Amino acid sequence: MNLEAVYHRTKSNWSYAYDAETLHVRIRTKKADITSIELHCGDKYGWDKTSAIIPMVPLASDALFDYWEAAVQPKFRRTVYYFALHDGETTAYMLEKGFFNEPPAIIYEGLFDFPFINPADVLKPPSWVKQAVFYQIFPERFANGDPSLNPEGTEPWGGTPTPKNFFGGDLKGVLDHLDYLTSLGINAIYFNPLFEGTTNHKYDTSDYMKVDPQFGTNETLKELVKVCHDRGIRVLLDAVFNHSGHTFPPYVDVIERGPASPYYDWFHIREWPLSVEDGVPTYDTFGFEPIMPKLNTENPEVKEYLLKVAKYWIEEIGIDGWRLDVANEVDHAFWRDFHKTVKSVNPEAYLLGEIMHDALPWLLGDQFDAVMNYPFTNACLDFFAHSRIGADQFASRISAQLVSYPQQANEVSFNLLGSHDTVRLLTLCEGSLDRLKLAYLFQLTFTGVPCIYYGDEIGIDGDYDPGNRKCMEWDPKKQNLELLAFFQRIISLRHKYAALQTGTLNFLMDLENDNNLIYERRDGKDHFLILINNSDQSSTFRTVVSKEAWSGILSDAPVSTQQGQLNVTLPPFGYAILHAMEN
Amino acid sequence: MNLEAVYHRTKSNWSYAYDAETLHVRIRTKKADITSIELHCGDKYGWDKTSAIIPMVPLASDALFDYWEAAVQPKFRRTVYYFALHDGETTAYMLEKGFFNEPPAIIYEGLFDFPFINPADVLKPPSWVKQAVFYQIFPERFANGDPSLNPEGTEPWGGTPTPKNFFGGDLKGVLDHLDYLTSLGINAIYFNPLFEGTTNHKYDTSDYMKVDPQFGTNETLKELVKVCHDRGIRVLLDAVFNHSGHTFPPYVDVIERGPASPYYDWFHIREWPLSVEDGVPTYDTFGFEPIMPKLNTENPEVKEYLLKVAKYWIEEIGIDGWRLDVANEVDHAFWRDFHKTVKSVNPEAYLLGEIMHDALPWLLGDQFDAVMNYPFTNACLDFFAHSRIGADQFASRISAQLVSYPQQANEVSFNLLGSHDTVRLLTLCEGSLDRLKLAYLFQLTFTGVPCIYYGDEIGIDGDYDPGNRKCMEWDPKKQNLELLAFFQRIISLRHKYAALQTGTLNFLMDLENDNNLIYERRDGKDHFLILINNSDQSSTFRTVVSKEAWSGILSDAPVSTQQGQLNVTLPPFGYAILHAMEN
Repeated sequence: MNLEAVYHRTKSNWSYAYDAETLHVRIRTKKADITSIELHCGDKYGWDKTSAIIPMVPLASDALFDYWEAAVQPKFRRTVYYFALHDGETTAYMLEKGFFNEPPAIIYEGLFDFPFINPADVLKPPSWVKQAVFYQIFPERFANGDPSLNPEGTEPWGGTPTPKNFFGGDLKGVLDHLDYLTSLGINAIYFNPLFEGTTNHKYDTSDYMKVDPQFGTNETLKELVKVCHDRGIRVLLDAVFNHSGHTFPPYVDVIERGPASPYYDWFHIREWPLSVEDGVPTYDTFGFEPIMPKLNTENPEVKEYLLKVAKYWIEEIGIDGWRLDVANEVDHAFWRDFHKTVKSVNPEAYLLGEIMHDALPWLLGDQFDAVMNYPFTNACLDFFAHSRIGADQFASRISAQLVSYPQQANEVSFNLLGSHDTVRLLTLCEGSLDRLKLAYLFQLTFTGVPCIYYGDEIGIDGDYDPGNRKCMEWDPKKQNLELLAFFQRIISLRHKYAALQTGTLNFLMDLENDNNLIYERRDGKDHFLILINNSDQSSTFRTVVSKEAWSGILSDAPVSTQQGQLNVTLPPFGYAILHAMEN
Repeated sequence: MNLEAVYHRTKSNWSYAYDAETLHVRIRTKKADITSIELHCGDKYGWDKTSAIIPMVPLASDALFDYWEAAVQPKFRRTVYYFALHDGETTAYMLEKGFFNEPPAIIYEGLFDFPFINPADVLKPPSWVKQAVFYQIFPERFANGDPSLNPEGTEPWGGTPTPKNFFGGDLKGVLDHLDYLTSLGINAIYFNPLFEGTTNHKYDTSDYMKVDPQFGTNETLKELVKVCHDRGIRVLLDAVFNHSGHTFPPYVDVIERGPASPYYDWFHIREWPLSVEDGVPTYDTFGFEPIMPKLNTENPEVKEYLLKVAKYWIEEIGIDGWRLDVANEVDHAFWRDFHKTVKSVNPEAYLLGEIMHDALPWLLGDQFDAVMNYPFTNACLDFFAHSRIGADQFASRISAQLVSYPQQANEVSFNLLGSHDTVRLLTLCEGSLDRLKLAYLFQLTFTGVPCIYYGDEIGIDGDYDPGNRKCMEWDPKKQNLELLAFFQRIISLRHKYAALQTGTLNFLMDLENDNNLIYERRDGKDHFLILINNSDQSSTFRTVVSKEAWSGILSDAPVSTQQGQLNVTLPPFGYAILHAMEN
């Protein structure tokens, strides 16, 4: 038994309260080393009355490890526990204090301890997010509904985007196209920044309390939010609290008055005067970008100001949450107050952090509901867009990602395949609509909340900024309507079946062909089997399944099952969604 | 190379800000598997300008693993990083996204990321704690200075303790014996609860705003704190916020008025009426103890009340911190507000949680400065008191404990060898003063803040409660004065040398005799080598040392060093503290 590979630690992704009654306990073992594990658990003040032995269930596997899970509902909300690991020959008992050959004689010393489930500490993402299909809108480029708002020098819609040009996209444009979004199946919009700024992307905020006049007014946004809500569409805004723009009045005041400015401590000024030497500003910024001075979120005045902002748009304008730019560079203390402030106004607000790395420290109930799932993006690109990895490695990376967070964070994880910060998916796929479809098929049938970057659904391509910020194409003759229909079909399937939203996920291995991706989604009601042929050759799928009768919900391919083995042949880049009833 | 054994994760004990400039990065590898590791790190927005390669230093080892550490001071407060692990034959590169045979081609994708050192998030325990030697006083049993306060039925001092009897210990008694504490070398007192309650231990608080009349008044305590401060002695009180006593007026009101009481939601009442069935109360309590109803610390009224309490004793009475009873069963959200409230009044207040298990989630800067170090206690008991484990296993357990927390938490870790909750150390040592001395010698020369349970220093013994709560012995003829002199000597050494407080710790192995414990403490100035013969046989210590000239600071044993090998023979249960100057 490889004891060095075994890992568990309390109060993290390895043991956490899923809800006010239920603990999830997970453990990691070396891949294919352990045959079964039991969780021994009970109340430390009354072990005899409460103890139970719970078989752990295989949860996932990655390149190096197997992961196991048990759900426990301790009667008095507290439990101590230890693991019994079997490899077919020997048994090892894992306690907090180490590994032993014998079970512990004394239960209240050295066991793992989940001391008490306090509801206040439980990560509770809003439940609407689990049913959401998001659409990301870069406001300058979605639709120009009110030319009277066009900034000076606005270019004709559909021209070539440059880092600095404008095309006049605005909120009226979005209002005008809500039917389009509804027909696509969208029920949530994520807007890139809408607040006043000088650039076309508005990540250089000058006024956090005001919609940029090129997009409309606060009233326009309020109206848009109301209309969206009437249609069942939620609205998420982008908050840039890590840094302001260089036209933010407090920063302007510092430039003008220097250390005498009352706003001097609103920023992190390492040396006065403000200057840039060898590309390095004398004050902290986003990256080394001089026009984005980092805000001192530890300063109580700054905090008060930003929390007022956070509250205003929720309370007064009615938005449904915040996407938080560069969230990982802002102090945790700020985010805790932010979380408290926003949830006190609207407990159903969705708090989404932009964090590209392991984000567990932000997902423990006191800060964010979820993060932008870039590890998901990268794995999808490597598999679907570039064919750099096979299905086995893809499943490994996706699984490793899932087990690293609490389940409720995964259920609302913001799964994107591209954004204003990345090359467009179609371009990464080198123009292959087949590959793009497979990637979106996976995203739209996977755990977490899918987001479509505006225009991906009609075949828009584009390189890095500014190429990824082209104007939306509204001429149906220039839209790929077959692709659009594909999106509509998959999205409507997702809306129809809860199993595709929050069902358990299980990758099945096809040992014969590493381009064959097979996975199940299931809840108590529906059982889906999804087959993806990630290659330009036709391919036969053979895998052991637990049911005989499968119907092809999204497949014309003949399906046969014999003695528990499924047999399906799919064309190049083909896919099938098979369905069976549970029980 | 055993990749499964390698572990690292950001923002935990594996990577954390030690102070506002310095990151500590640690990694774990299989024991004796890896020969060297380099940390490659740099600013993700300017890798070329900032990147560095830092050799990692072996930090500690335990039964299964080696632990390595590097300290980094990123110029712009942010760093991404990866590890290069060498085993003499191959090199593996460990990134957040996995292990690779080649170093990463792209530095901003898939590396580990410590996004920004924000001072607000850094765990900053008060620095005075590092220099403290604590003394725990169980107020009812330390000294009776004012017989007029004796509760009814007080028994003569020195009688046999029972669960319910009283001996009249009080605050005046403590005031009267401060010379004793000063001569012992004590500079901090931890008091078991002083607030009004019905029991002799006062863990059943009835009034959080009032010293129990049997101990004195709030004014007496204020006077005591003032006198202590004048002598350089800090004062820590015990706060029981997990539960109240059954005479706490809000609870009494609930008993009387039931669901109509405005205090009904101050508690966790599962079923009305309150009753106990089969030993299980119908309301949440501490354990299943009916007289200790659990407080609903999520109720804003309860929180406000308890935070007022927390503030009052710091602000009005001047105490230096709180020891927090059953801290792990109270919600984290409460402790975060508690931390904020207390530190806003006195940033130098010491917040100490009673948590017997792995306490990392409370030690990340937003809740406690330290916890009561019971894993330390248990390891010491197993080695010194019971000889159940050898020096190698003892060093393993102590090392595993140290690497599981940030260094600054270890520096103020509350290291105890017994308390009102445990059997007295002397009793566990089966009366062996030799063993007791070795345990305290280790504690008083180890990282973290030592605490002496009142009377241990003069030879008081005692079994579990009530035996461990005997009256303090004040008759010098009945005190073990030789033992007292031993404590005075070691404590004064600790006060004299910072290396014994916060110096680095390193266990040296003696392969010939597993009863020989050898460890170093060193800072830039002093280098200590401490030898402990944990056996009833005389024993020769041979170990490789980096210096030739050693003087015995607490040893008469002849010391010889030849070709870097130290040679010392110690009598049964003998010990030596050897000293050399650094450089």
